[in-house]
Amino acid sequence: MSDFDFQRIGLVGAGLIGGAIAARLARIMPDTALIVHDASPGNAAYVAERHPNAGIVAGIADLTTCDVIFVATPVATIAQQVIALLEIPNCTALIIDTGSVKQALVDAAAKSNTDASRFIPGHPLAGGISAGPGRSSGDIITARPFVLTPTEHTDPEALAAARALLERLGAEVIEMAPDAHDRILALGSHLPHLIAYALAGLGSEEPGALLPTSYRNIAAFAGSDPQMWADIFRANGPELKAVLGEFKKRLDLIAAMADEPEPGNLLDTLTDAKTRIEALENDG
Amino acid sequence: MSDFDFQRIGLVGAGLIGGAIAARLARIMPDTALIVHDASPGNAAYVAERHPNAGIVAGIADLTTCDVIFVATPVATIAQQVIALLEIPNCTALIIDTGSVKQALVDAAAKSNTDASRFIPGHPLAGGISAGPGRSSGDIITARPFVLTPTEHTDPEALAAARALLERLGAEVIEMAPDAHDRILALGSHLPHLIAYALAGLGSEEPGALLPTSYRNIAAFAGSDPQMWADIFRANGPELKAVLGEFKKRLDLIAAMADEPEPGNLLDTLTDAKTRIEALENDG
Repeated sequence: MSDFDFQRIGLVGAGLIGGAIAARLARIMPDTALIVHDASPGNAAYVAERHPNAGIVAGIADLTTCDVIFVATPVATIAQQVIALLEIPNCTALIIDTGSVKQALVDAAAKSNTDASRFIPGHPLAGGISAGPGRSSGDIITARPFVLTPTEHTDPEALAAARALLERLGAEVIEMAPDAHDRILALGSHLPHLIAYALAGLGSEEPGALLPTSYRNIAAFAGSDPQMWADIFRANGPELKAVLGEFKKRLDLIAAMADEPEPGNLLDTLTDAKTRIEALENDG
Repeated sequence: MSDFDFQRIGLVGAGLIGGAIAARLARIMPDTALIVHDASPGNAAYVAERHPNAGIVAGIADLTTCDVIFVATPVATIAQQVIALLEIPNCTALIIDTGSVKQALVDAAAKSNTDASRFIPGHPLAGGISAGPGRSSGDIITARPFVLTPTEHTDPEALAAARALLERLGAEVIEMAPDAHDRILALGSHLPHLIAYALAGLGSEEPGALLPTSYRNIAAFAGSDPQMWADIFRANGPELKAVLGEFKKRLDLIAAMADEPEPGNLLDTLTDAKTRIEALENDG
């Protein structure tokens, strides 16, 4: 398994992320064949048209001869797709997924009766409020890190090959444990979206003109795809609830400080938060 | 008190909002005198230089001959400034403030031994992450509604005159009760900032590159002035805590739905939130 040359690349799921991967492949590896499958023929056609050497197949069984297969379907279906791909007879393709939640997925793969050594769990820290391939550009893959979360089942050479391919596509690859990934994403992405849905849902019957920028900019993330976020909240429930607990404690702490006779503790806490967010902004 | 002609306009507080008022005055009423007072001589000079007919005074006693005085100081000092202005002997100026919290202010004015009939509590729904006069433009006054919160002590003719002046400056004036204002702002501005400070404070020791757009955009509001927000959280404590309670309930509701065996309730709730925020965005 040491010598992957990636002549045929499969793509299951032609949405925002799948489209971005196809765009990078079209640019960096245009001579390599791309074989696309999506439950929506329109999405598959949209993505395939943007690659000079792409074809569309009706099912994953037609991906047998691929050297590597990206799985970029919704979070709720990734485990089933990955396991089905690992079960294709005589298929030796690397399987790289792009889902936002990793622990539940690697657990499902480990519990299946498949050999998961060729499966490289991954997650490009990309995306945004929009969904679908029409909004995807290759920048999504290059602008933000691509996290890989190998397990003890992962073949080191398969991992190295996946890493080399992603780096060839321009991604900055970072490796971490699946649970570490899920914890960081619970804070950095899943909680912020939960906040947005909760704030937008408080809604109010007030005229929109009275709701200022801060409300609008935060609640705007509730414009994201509800199905995708329902899947993510369900898949990362324990980590999301843990960080939600920390967040609520911090809200209560600040609110309680606002009741103290002197403003010192409140001011210190707000100043510390300002320092942190400014350091993050400077960190890029 | 029926015939205000606004020959001399006072401004106490030459920050973001005071600077915006001065910019509109310079544009719409350039021949009217503007008399500026700020604890920071630099701020006062910055704002006065941008008005063709402005002067600076060292204290509020020098504002006696004004026809109207805007008070745009930090929230924690507005009550004291308004009451001191109402106590100036032989001064008949309208007093219009611009603070983000209204009930505590009108209560303080009512409890003072002054005649508060000339005091028009107000709040332009403006501002942003930046503070100080350097970032203020007259657009702040015209782009968003200017709320007035008269009480039973407010002289109706003084209110009508204040309203006419603000409309002449291009503001869209909306009247509501002080407590209604504070409730709406608690949801639309104070809670969103509390959320940002809490989220930024959770901080994490993770590399910034791993924290996605949603975290960054929401926590970015914690870059606002800590002193200003400490003042606002303290001044609007009861309304802020009421809406915080509703918000935490909604967070818990969504988190609990993510545990249900079927995704239906979760999906419905997220979809409802998406519908609300999209309606708000279309509402402008």
